[in-house]
Amino acid sequence: MHPTAVLLISCPDQKGLVAAIADFLLRHNANILHADQHQDAELKLFLMRVEWDLADFNLQLAAFNTAFAPIAKRFGMQWRLARSAHKSRMAIFVSKFDHCLADLLYRYQNGELHCELSLILSNHEDTRWLADAYHIPFQHLAVHQDAKPDAERMQLAILCDQAVDFIVLARYMQVLSPEFIRHYPNRIINIHHSFLPAFHGAKPYHRAFERGVKLIGATAHYVTDVLDDGPIIEQDVARISHRASLADLVNKGADLEKVVLSRAVKWHLDNRVLVYANKTVVFD
Amino acid sequence: MHPTAVLLISCPDQKGLVAAIADFLLRHNANILHADQHQDAELKLFLMRVEWDLADFNLQLAAFNTAFAPIAKRFGMQWRLARSAHKSRMAIFVSKFDHCLADLLYRYQNGELHCELSLILSNHEDTRWLADAYHIPFQHLAVHQDAKPDAERMQLAILCDQAVDFIVLARYMQVLSPEFIRHYPNRIINIHHSFLPAFHGAKPYHRAFERGVKLIGATAHYVTDVLDDGPIIEQDVARISHRASLADLVNKGADLEKVVLSRAVKWHLDNRVLVYANKTVVFD
Amino acid sequence: MHPTAVLLISCPDQKGLVAAIADFLLRHNANILHADQHQDAELKLFLMRVEWDLADFNLQLAAFNTAFAPIAKRFGMQWRLARSAHKSRMAIFVSKFDHCLADLLYRYQNGELHCELSLILSNHEDTRWLADAYHIPFQHLAVHQDAKPDAERMQLAILCDQAVDFIVLARYMQVLSPEFIRHYPNRIINIHHSFLPAFHGAKPYHRAFERGVKLIGATAHYVTDVLDDGPIIEQDVARISHRASLADLVNKGADLEKVVLSRAVKWHLDNRVLVYANKTVVFD
Amino acid sequence: MHPTAVLLISCPDQKGLVAAIADFLLRHNANILHADQHQDAELKLFLMRVEWDLADFNLQLAAFNTAFAPIAKRFGMQWRLARSAHKSRMAIFVSKFDHCLADLLYRYQNGELHCELSLILSNHEDTRWLADAYHIPFQHLAVHQDAKPDAERMQLAILCDQAVDFIVLARYMQVLSPEFIRHYPNRIINIHHSFLPAFHGAKPYHRAFERGVKLIGATAHYVTDVLDDGPIIEQDVARISHRASLADLVNKGADLEKVVLSRAVKWHLDNRVLVYANKTVVFD
Repeated sequence: MHPTAVLLISCPDQKGLVAAIADFLLRHNANILHADQHQDAELKLFLMRVEWDLADFNLQLAAFNTAFAPIAKRFGMQWRLARSAHKSRMAIFVSKFDHCLADLLYRYQNGELHCELSLILSNHEDTRWLADAYHIPFQHLAVHQDAKPDAERMQLAILCDQAVDFIVLARYMQVLSPEFIRHYPNRIINIHHSFLPAFHGAKPYHRAFERGVKLIGATAHYVTDVLDDGPIIEQDVARISHRASLADLVNKGADLEKVVLSRAVKWHLDNRVLVYANKTVVFD
Repeated sequence: MHPTAVLLISCPDQKGLVAAIADFLLRHNANILHADQHQDAELKLFLMRVEWDLADFNLQLAAFNTAFAPIAKRFGMQWRLARSAHKSRMAIFVSKFDHCLADLLYRYQNGELHCELSLILSNHEDTRWLADAYHIPFQHLAVHQDAKPDAERMQLAILCDQAVDFIVLARYMQVLSPEFIRHYPNRIINIHHSFLPAFHGAKPYHRAFERGVKLIGATAHYVTDVLDDGPIIEQDVARISHRASLADLVNKGADLEKVVLSRAVKWHLDNRVLVYANKTVVFD
Repeated sequence: MHPTAVLLISCPDQKGLVAAIADFLLRHNANILHADQHQDAELKLFLMRVEWDLADFNLQLAAFNTAFAPIAKRFGMQWRLARSAHKSRMAIFVSKFDHCLADLLYRYQNGELHCELSLILSNHEDTRWLADAYHIPFQHLAVHQDAKPDAERMQLAILCDQAVDFIVLARYMQVLSPEFIRHYPNRIINIHHSFLPAFHGAKPYHRAFERGVKLIGATAHYVTDVLDDGPIIEQDVARISHRASLADLVNKGADLEKVVLSRAVKWHLDNRVLVYANKTVVFD
Repeated sequence: MHPTAVLLISCPDQKGLVAAIADFLLRHNANILHADQHQDAELKLFLMRVEWDLADFNLQLAAFNTAFAPIAKRFGMQWRLARSAHKSRMAIFVSKFDHCLADLLYRYQNGELHCELSLILSNHEDTRWLADAYHIPFQHLAVHQDAKPDAERMQLAILCDQAVDFIVLARYMQVLSPEFIRHYPNRIINIHHSFLPAFHGAKPYHRAFERGVKLIGATAHYVTDVLDDGPIIEQDVARISHRASLADLVNKGADLEKVVLSRAVKWHLDNRVLVYANKTVVFD
């Protein structure tokens, strides 16, 4: 596989956009591998993802900014360039439940996740054995309820030291403060164990069980200041019946959480997710 | 097909229950066709549905009550006997959207719904043509916002006159009063166009669209005094993507609503649904 | 809604394609509503669907062919232009099972299917009442096993007379001859009541029941000379358990067949389906 | 959790069965936790699973056989008693693909699989690291195409030595001989990477890709003499689109395979699966 580049664009929808972008890429001899675009008819927005092979591309990526700037300015674009040769540095936050962590570790080792897994950070010691099995650095850092700001400062210091640019909350049971989140806008993915917005907040399986729902769900979303309210990346559900006990819900839900979170992380790392209006476009 | 009887039982879980019921049926030479039971371990409840062929059954159903009473008393049972030979009398309430009505009418004509469809009652004239096509009585009865109690009194009079014992709200856009509902406890089924408890109340598709969910849902439930809070009978979801406009959600949702409502109605009519603790057991 | 045009293109993948198409549309002031493209990396094919508003488009569609020909020739394109103002003329073939027919009729009446439903053609009288209810011409034409060529000649004459350009086999139980099919290449959609290629041929539900599968399926596909082997447009499945009798499979399957067939018909009519290599691209 | 016992029964359907079983359990003071029964109307078979708490049960399990024999004889039952206190000894066979193995190991460590995992047996060295990470004995045993009977003899010796009574083929790429299978009737579970009976045999993803299906599947089944034809325990599917390459199918399929295989293994170990007529009843 040759190295590739991905360009993500959002701007007001208008004539000539595609022609301008396609012409720019053609002039620099880009071999387009995938292109996908979306028009939000209501908000009159244009959103695009285009990926090309860098083999024959005759523009240095260092010069891309300057070369593309006139087009971006003309159409009022927000844009971002990502290179497959650059791997994000990822941290996983986890508490005691280890099913999502185990799943992510397997996929990381397997090459499914295009990133560098820098470290696992936990407020408990329970999952250290998994980190060891996969040879990933594990850092234990207790979070005392009366000293959360201190804990977050220490977490941020570690993340900064490791140059982490993306965080996955793999059933991390602490709410992050707006101060913390501000350092990673749309770069923290959480898995919530319900079909949001149903059962946001604490103990969703208990409440689903009590309500007598016939399906349970899981939701992966970017973390924002408002709890469980960030842009949804992926959701899925599983059917349950009256025979399912609360423990069955938790077990069946764990399988959902794993697969929903791992899809979201993968798509994020493949630069397939574009956030706008507290929603996501997931280019496929 | 011979006529059959269905016995639905709920009571505190205790030893000897199944033996007593099985022995009773055996003594009267019942040929059991289906039997299903459920224990709610948390509430320590026993719930059962048993269906038998009446061909060789040597107890007159008129005498069932007396014969079964000692067992029912001994175990503290709530129970209900239903005969396949007896068809419920059903009414459908509808407003302007006709997809659920059209689906129910087709299934009724097709023999899928084990009932007598007495009439269609609507606060609009829009669906009269469908009632005519299927030769079902259609009654238009306007509901003025300042005279809802009057309208409900007239509706109840019609239902009483037609000896209706079961009501389906097939996207009926009026909220029924507790007074009305009291006449049909656990005998009114509503279809709500969301995955409850998400988006209960008005305009669920609009809110789902705004929230950017990745799945939309539909929920069939018995109507209780609290809006959209009654025991859930069936739910299902469909996947949507960022490409789906609000209109697409409404269209895709219509297909969900049809199938979820018709399943719930069918199960109710087949005496498969048992309500307890604001939940349902759906015996399959 | 303004009238729109849809352009469907397939050709060898090569540089400059998107730029050429986008530039052509821009020069004629097209306001692009949707554009979607796909590269088949293995076959090195480029496939595209683009839809634009005709309001400001400054090229007469009558002149489109001439204007677009140089681009088409340069890139070796196979292409097709469709206008929303033009409605396909559709015929439905049906035998005795009427669930798919009833579903299509409801959707047609509802405005979901962008076509002119010219007639229903059946080898039985059973579904005439449905055609009458929806005021669609119904033609009965018996098919005797020893005179199938005659029957097909008469069918073709009727279709020709009605200028039909698209046929839906809504559980039509006769196999069409290659001679017949040749008149409607990729313009006959069939619903097969299994998850193809499993259980192709006769009595799929019987065979699914015997094999003890845990899911049943339905497949909508274009009809080709080889039975049940044409390009698949859509498939779906439903879960069954050991409790499901053969009759349950048939009933549950009917609901699948309806929805799978109607999706395929809708996508075909919206010019979303592109056939290549005995497969389909369904642009969404 | 108290220890429990599970009784699995199949016999010709007849009156008095449930009464006899319920009475027997009641006489011995069994506290029934779950009971589920199924009547196959076509084959006139009765199938039952009943699980009870052993705490108050006043019959020694060693004496169960003798005590239950008269009932079993009277109704012509095939039956089997399983105790939760007894753990099956399981072996996993694997080749190079490790996703199913990793999933099973995680679930085993997690306590989800009620068994003793005796060993992992592989014809390759590739997965040894996983076995080591979870501290499970790993045995490498090359299988040469011209010496398969020798290899199987050695495998059987190892299994016998380890007192293994249940085998999981977690993407084991060798076909087992009828001689081998005879040692483990309905006690070898295989995962096939297609929705059987579609694409049985080799390279199912390649063939699914070529055929242009819109869903891919996975099937867990007991191994019999006929390749990919044994009783199906569980199946599931995932939706794919034209955008999916063959590699995408393989990746998406891996997630299906894991979850389908692990469900089947779990149900088998919980004594929920009853085989008859080359089908399974999965009591839930």
